Amino acid sequence: MSTSSWLGGLGTRILSADGPAIASASAHLDRLTKPPGSLGRLEGIAIQLAGIRGRLVTDIERPMVIVFAADHGVASRGVSAYPPEVTAQMVANFVAGGAAINVLARAASAGLVVVDIGIAGDVGVATGQGLVAGSTSGARLVRARVAPGTRDLSIGPAMTRDETLAAIDVGRGAVVSLVDDGADLIGVGEMGIGNTTAASAIVAALTGLPASAVTGRGTGVDEPAFMRKVALIDAALVLHRLDPGDPIAVLAVVGGLEIAGLVGAILGAAEARIPVVLDGFITGAAALLAAGLAPNLPARLIAAHRSVEPGHAIVLDRLGLAPILELDLRLGEGSGAALAIPIIRAAARIGGEMATFEQAAVSGPA
Amino acid sequence: MSTSSWLGGLGTRILSADGPAIASASAHLDRLTKPPGSLGRLEGIAIQLAGIRGRLVTDIERPMVIVFAADHGVASRGVSAYPPEVTAQMVANFVAGGAAINVLARAASAGLVVVDIGIAGDVGVATGQGLVAGSTSGARLVRARVAPGTRDLSIGPAMTRDETLAAIDVGRGAVVSLVDDGADLIGVGEMGIGNTTAASAIVAALTGLPASAVTGRGTGVDEPAFMRKVALIDAALVLHRLDPGDPIAVLAVVGGLEIAGLVGAILGAAEARIPVVLDGFITGAAALLAAGLAPNLPARLIAAHRSVEPGHAIVLDRLGLAPILELDLRLGEGSGAALAIPIIRAAARIGGEMATFEQAAVSGPA
Repeated sequence: MSTSSWLGGLGTRILSADGPAIASASAHLDRLTKPPGSLGRLEGIAIQLAGIRGRLVTDIERPMVIVFAADHGVASRGVSAYPPEVTAQMVANFVAGGAAINVLARAASAGLVVVDIGIAGDVGVATGQGLVAGSTSGARLVRARVAPGTRDLSIGPAMTRDETLAAIDVGRGAVVSLVDDGADLIGVGEMGIGNTTAASAIVAALTGLPASAVTGRGTGVDEPAFMRKVALIDAALVLHRLDPGDPIAVLAVVGGLEIAGLVGAILGAAEARIPVVLDGFITGAAALLAAGLAPNLPARLIAAHRSVEPGHAIVLDRLGLAPILELDLRLGEGSGAALAIPIIRAAARIGGEMATFEQAAVSGPA
Repeated sequence: MSTSSWLGGLGTRILSADGPAIASASAHLDRLTKPPGSLGRLEGIAIQLAGIRGRLVTDIERPMVIVFAADHGVASRGVSAYPPEVTAQMVANFVAGGAAINVLARAASAGLVVVDIGIAGDVGVATGQGLVAGSTSGARLVRARVAPGTRDLSIGPAMTRDETLAAIDVGRGAVVSLVDDGADLIGVGEMGIGNTTAASAIVAALTGLPASAVTGRGTGVDEPAFMRKVALIDAALVLHRLDPGDPIAVLAVVGGLEIAGLVGAILGAAEARIPVVLDGFITGAAALLAAGLAPNLPARLIAAHRSVEPGHAIVLDRLGLAPILELDLRLGEGSGAALAIPIIRAAARIGGEMATFEQAAVSGPA
């Protein structure tokens, strides 16, 4: 099945949450030895998991974090605090096991895969390997480069429609492969110098908001670079005159290869009824695009956190998602998704392991 | 050393945070392969841990959750949704491994100890044992009952000064024993039907606020019981005319045995320079009492979460603590403390396992 025909049928294949499974999980939680609802959001997560999987979920046994990495033509315009070669260098760091996402995935007992879906330079995976004290395992690298980075979105479309669909297909294929190997939760992340510029342009295009409302400092640009970033996005939106009702066109023209990979990954996991844990602003922008293709999608998404990027809160609001964590993160890489996994796993285990009032011979309300 | 003389010297033994260790940890975090500060609160936690321990903390290897359980004379006044016998029944459930705190401590790879410091009835620890599907380990029970519950604080002092000091000593002793066994983080929790009434009275007495500002619905009382609870606390404060400058007197007159145990546990861990993870409103009230005895205490405390009890936000504000989680929890038992442990551990491991820019050959800012 080609990507475009797969995308066409999505709206009917990603269904709304499973009502009977939700009712059954909710009734089960109320029989456990605690005041009803006293575990707050944890109970909400357990109920959502049941709605996604169609049954009570009692553990998260094989969570996987998948990170899509690609370069951006627009990075040459001075919109990032870091030079473009950092994308490839950080992917090498992921493979060597020394990045934040490595540590956080290990701490969450989650597997980690990084997909080179469009890095411009060479990923010198030997670099740094073995140098990292305490690193016991690095990420598995999937080489699936659709193009060596995008073109500069400030002067023309970042990608062709074919490149966009190919990258969506890579993302979907990577996640289907993880699910076939037993993954029961997918956390998504990204690496790509310049990609907050692309994500801000996407969110501005989809919402009609000005760049100033949806743009932040990314990895930490100074004031002149921030002003340049906002002006560049506003000018690009005027140049391209995008239709918010055509998510694929928005993605192609102002998006990026890793963002297209994320769209495919999110939709592929959702279609397989596997919960998707979003990370920060860029994965949120990808989810907002994906929700334009499959309106029932948000019920299958869990927002790990709310970052300091101002556009992130807007994205979560549009998706109707409440973040689990608010820790002022602004790293990306899937770091927030990995941090939220132990909370989601704890929510599942509550339903799987707690005693009922009857089992434990505990009195109910007086 | 008697409890009262130990308490007397606390102010000089619990010192402020270790400045050089903080500066060194902060510089180390800025050398790691991420934009400076991009891990937000996680970096703050790593720095706080260094300030407590006096060195970079690279993992949390042996976290322990300690739950103090006791009964309250005031529970006979209809201030709780549950009957008093639930305290003993839930402690039996902790020992059998079927309560929420069992699941959450296991999920956090934390040990669990429950201290019977003042339960009124028999803890039928055989009850429920073996009945709980999926429970692989229960809590260790420490029998250290100072009295069979408190007296009704609405008609007289809940405890004598001697009972109060004895319970503080039990709490301190229990934690010192855990630290001697290698505990490197202490999460604190409680179980005691009626204890949100005691905690609200404590916080009202210490802050001068009316009961209505610091009282919530505990495990879920209805409107008439809530009104009764507020009126009872206000009347008790008029009756006892407590001095907010005398925390031991406040604790004795309107507190509880498990709250006194918590005060001793918090102070004992802090004196040993072991980070203390507070759970919800009741452990927060205990910390506020303890901070009255040792002004430098708050730098050694980590607030796991902010619960839905209105008094909890007030307590955290007075202690100057920002909660890690806001998940609308209102269970107690140490449940929020256990949920925060994986986040705290992840923060420590960031400092322990990430590569530096130099090690990973990653370029710095352009």
